[in-house]
Amino acid sequence: MVNDADQIAAAWMREAISLGREGMRANEGGPFGAVVVCSGKIVGRGCNQVTSTCDPTAHAEVLALRQACHSLGRFELRGCEIYASCEPCPMCLAAIYWARLDKAYYGCSRQEAAAIGFDDDFIYTQMPLPISQRSLPMEQISPNESRSLFEEWSAKPDKVPY
Amino acid sequence: MVNDADQIAAAWMREAISLGREGMRANEGGPFGAVVVCSGKIVGRGCNQVTSTCDPTAHAEVLALRQACHSLGRFELRGCEIYASCEPCPMCLAAIYWARLDKAYYGCSRQEAAAIGFDDDFIYTQMPLPISQRSLPMEQISPNESRSLFEEWSAKPDKVPY
Repeated sequence: MVNDADQIAAAWMREAISLGREGMRANEGGPFGAVVVCSGKIVGRGCNQVTSTCDPTAHAEVLALRQACHSLGRFELRGCEIYASCEPCPMCLAAIYWARLDKAYYGCSRQEAAAIGFDDDFIYTQMPLPISQRSLPMEQISPNESRSLFEEWSAKPDKVPY
Repeated sequence: MVNDADQIAAAWMREAISLGREGMRANEGGPFGAVVVCSGKIVGRGCNQVTSTCDPTAHAEVLALRQACHSLGRFELRGCEIYASCEPCPMCLAAIYWARLDKAYYGCSRQEAAAIGFDDDFIYTQMPLPISQRSLPMEQISPNESRSLFEEWSAKPDKVPY
């Protein structure tokens, strides 16, 4: 049995898929779309624009989150949900955590994205690895100088936490 | 013994720290700065601007990557290195993978960021969890409709992979 909430969620997902399809056909980027919904209205839309805008962070979810924050005039999205045509990659998932959305709906899986040549699944495998075991070389330098920045932040009387 | 390469790396890191300090003092956002270096020159700069621009994705690294891609006119950054005043969060680390940089240098650790109130470490713990065990509710819907987008991409003759 399909209830009203399921039908509404499916309608938002259709909008996300439609955005992804339009973007792909217009050669804006990969086959991915997303919408952010707040109180029954779309407040952010995005389709992948990595290759057309020369921006590796221009994933559908990131663009939809940014537009939603801009629309609502705040840097977090409590009370909002995101609908993404594919399971968010680690960049987008972490962005969803930073933006503190209530829920994420997704269509395809990261494995299906991998099957058509995208690195989502590979990047997921890199995330929990110790730094020394990642394919990306990483090196810690100047920790004391960097720490002084954190100490100044801790003591800053007018900071805006997020 | 400190060699030339170490001294040069320390100088780029000082620039990243300096950007983070300026941004923090100007109330642009948190205490984080980053630079992207290509062939011995800075091609992208960023300081955290989450709270001032209402953009949860406006981390120093993301802004530096975006500026570097814009400067170089390409959507990936092979041959480049990033210097970040703090260990990149999962969003930024995944962005670094998508942009295919050669190496990432970092100052403070994610644990130090946690100690001054930032969620980097918490979000790292969420990444490898099965979807059902995350603190963020996630639900898969409309997988078949989403998959049709991937099928169209696979068959698209003029796609630009990334």
